[in-house]
Amino acid sequence: MTDTADFPREHEPERPAGWMDHDAIQYVRTVLPILYVDAIPVRVDEAGDVVAVGLLLRVTREGVMSRALVSGRVMYHERVRDALLRHIEKDLGPVALPQIPASPQPFTVAEYFPTPGVTPYHDPRQHAVSLAYVVPVSGDCRPQQDALDLAWLTPEEATSEQVQMAMNGGQDLLLRQAMAHVGRLS
Amino acid sequence: MTDTADFPREHEPERPAGWMDHDAIQYVRTVLPILYVDAIPVRVDEAGDVVAVGLLLRVTREGVMSRALVSGRVMYHERVRDALLRHIEKDLGPVALPQIPASPQPFTVAEYFPTPGVTPYHDPRQHAVSLAYVVPVSGDCRPQQDALDLAWLTPEEATSEQVQMAMNGGQDLLLRQAMAHVGRLS
Amino acid sequence: MTDTADFPREHEPERPAGWMDHDAIQYVRTVLPILYVDAIPVRVDEAGDVVAVGLLLRVTREGVMSRALVSGRVMYHERVRDALLRHIEKDLGPVALPQIPASPQPFTVAEYFPTPGVTPYHDPRQHAVSLAYVVPVSGDCRPQQDALDLAWLTPEEATSEQVQMAMNGGQDLLLRQAMAHVGRLS
Amino acid sequence: MTDTADFPREHEPERPAGWMDHDAIQYVRTVLPILYVDAIPVRVDEAGDVVAVGLLLRVTREGVMSRALVSGRVMYHERVRDALLRHIEKDLGPVALPQIPASPQPFTVAEYFPTPGVTPYHDPRQHAVSLAYVVPVSGDCRPQQDALDLAWLTPEEATSEQVQMAMNGGQDLLLRQAMAHVGRLS
Repeated sequence: MTDTADFPREHEPERPAGWMDHDAIQYVRTVLPILYVDAIPVRVDEAGDVVAVGLLLRVTREGVMSRALVSGRVMYHERVRDALLRHIEKDLGPVALPQIPASPQPFTVAEYFPTPGVTPYHDPRQHAVSLAYVVPVSGDCRPQQDALDLAWLTPEEATSEQVQMAMNGGQDLLLRQAMAHVGRLS
Repeated sequence: MTDTADFPREHEPERPAGWMDHDAIQYVRTVLPILYVDAIPVRVDEAGDVVAVGLLLRVTREGVMSRALVSGRVMYHERVRDALLRHIEKDLGPVALPQIPASPQPFTVAEYFPTPGVTPYHDPRQHAVSLAYVVPVSGDCRPQQDALDLAWLTPEEATSEQVQMAMNGGQDLLLRQAMAHVGRLS
Repeated sequence: MTDTADFPREHEPERPAGWMDHDAIQYVRTVLPILYVDAIPVRVDEAGDVVAVGLLLRVTREGVMSRALVSGRVMYHERVRDALLRHIEKDLGPVALPQIPASPQPFTVAEYFPTPGVTPYHDPRQHAVSLAYVVPVSGDCRPQQDALDLAWLTPEEATSEQVQMAMNGGQDLLLRQAMAHVGRLS
Repeated sequence: MTDTADFPREHEPERPAGWMDHDAIQYVRTVLPILYVDAIPVRVDEAGDVVAVGLLLRVTREGVMSRALVSGRVMYHERVRDALLRHIEKDLGPVALPQIPASPQPFTVAEYFPTPGVTPYHDPRQHAVSLAYVVPVSGDCRPQQDALDLAWLTPEEATSEQVQMAMNGGQDLLLRQAMAHVGRLS
């Protein structure tokens, strides 16, 4: 799970409700599960069949190149669908034209534990519980901020061992679950 | 039981595989559940929230005005997603631009029985089992063929008693189930 | 905003990870969505059809009798399925024998906002995001703790206007969504 | 997909509605998609987590040993949930105590085409469309009729290459989709 830069900077004078400074975030991460959304951006054909999966190329804090899904925190007083839209625009740009699902029912819930092995998902910083959605995007996507690249891979390529090994925290599994859900697991 | 000698003869050259004449359809309707798809066409906003539901206005064989969903049979050797696309284009026109779901998982399965009361759905002609999907459409929709009109109603209007009473065979319930699924049941 | 210096001190030896005192809970409720689970306890017949819904009878802080679903917070380092089990046992007793779903996919996600009207769900204390599941229970259920009674109602009774009016915060809607999901909305 | 022995024998004097002789079955298989159910029988722990998957050992018509899911046709005037129950009892015996899902929503729809390659599922005899469910069973299971054995494998074993290669028609994929759905894909 990627660390999202969605917290206001310290020099911002007007702090909105739900604003947390670094210490506050560190604290809540030790006492509560943090709500996330994970989006698997896809290209679909006219009949809705998934033809490509979008994966971000990032450099981890350890300096390793990794492939990542769109992922981020749901903020206080933010609807899940608005969080999905915000994170997709943050990562894929303002004209990605995502088709946010009409239903809030996620295809799965990924539970990232700080302790490895409790579930297949792991986040050393926190206990994050993520609602996962497959989101078709029809517009022009450009990697933003900390992402170096956005690659569109076929479902077969995206679930290949080489690509899967470049994903962290169990997102390789989450991607395969998404492909299973859309009938494109190979 | 109909004599099986009535079934399509091998020397019929021009009929495609899966073609059925009237007698054949009448026969299979007495021996097998028939696979259908039901689509609830919706307009969504940028965040995926349903803002309107499209209902067809039809005249039933008994001459009564009724509101209807997009609905139709899955043909032999046709994928469910292709049947969805075909029926939406048949009822809403060729430029409706439906967003066929990436996943084949329906939000529910509606079982229309020829005998009333077995399930909440009823079809006097047959036992039809219908996979039901909410399908956002972003293009220009025009009623085709036997439909007199296509009305876009808010979720509240579409689930109002007046509109619900104009729907047949349990489609009123199916529409409310769809609104429950997208979080817009009132 | 509460001074972050109030957060758990390192010298507190006996408190488990994830423990929060009253002030800490009050604080996090103003900065983060809190993860919940909602369970709709049901009795099913041999074919899985829902024949009854279990509703708790409670007295609200305002002294009003109300009907409620099983609901509660997911704790730090607790899996969603373990939270479901814990809250069902807490509310229905230790021998309710709940059939916790094999899949983490909820039938819906209920977003309780502190501000009424943002979504159909409302919780004046907090922004709670709840994963909702229908949970068949086959054992002996007895209301625990703060519940006065547990009533088993038919789906028709549970969605009747009288019962629905005795539910709070949008749980009446959530119950109808659950009945829609299991094909028992009337 | 296994050929189910669910058609009445010819010496039965009273043929129920929906009865089809061999020629009739052969005919309808060339004109209509046939509705099926697939059940993945599982053992779950107290928290609903899947701990084992039940696979039938069968000999195919070609004399090859194969692993199979519970699978069969939905009959005329039969509810999907009743078909699920009937096929599970037929394959696992009368005291398997299956927990048929309360909701008719399948985790996926498997489309078995007579032509290989249209979808990942294949049935040379027919176009079968199968609603797929994960079904926990808590009772004593014994293989019936044409099955030689019933093996309980861990999710990891069931999705291992060796076991997957012993499955036919795409049921290996369907099993992995089921494990993805319950969060036990490895």
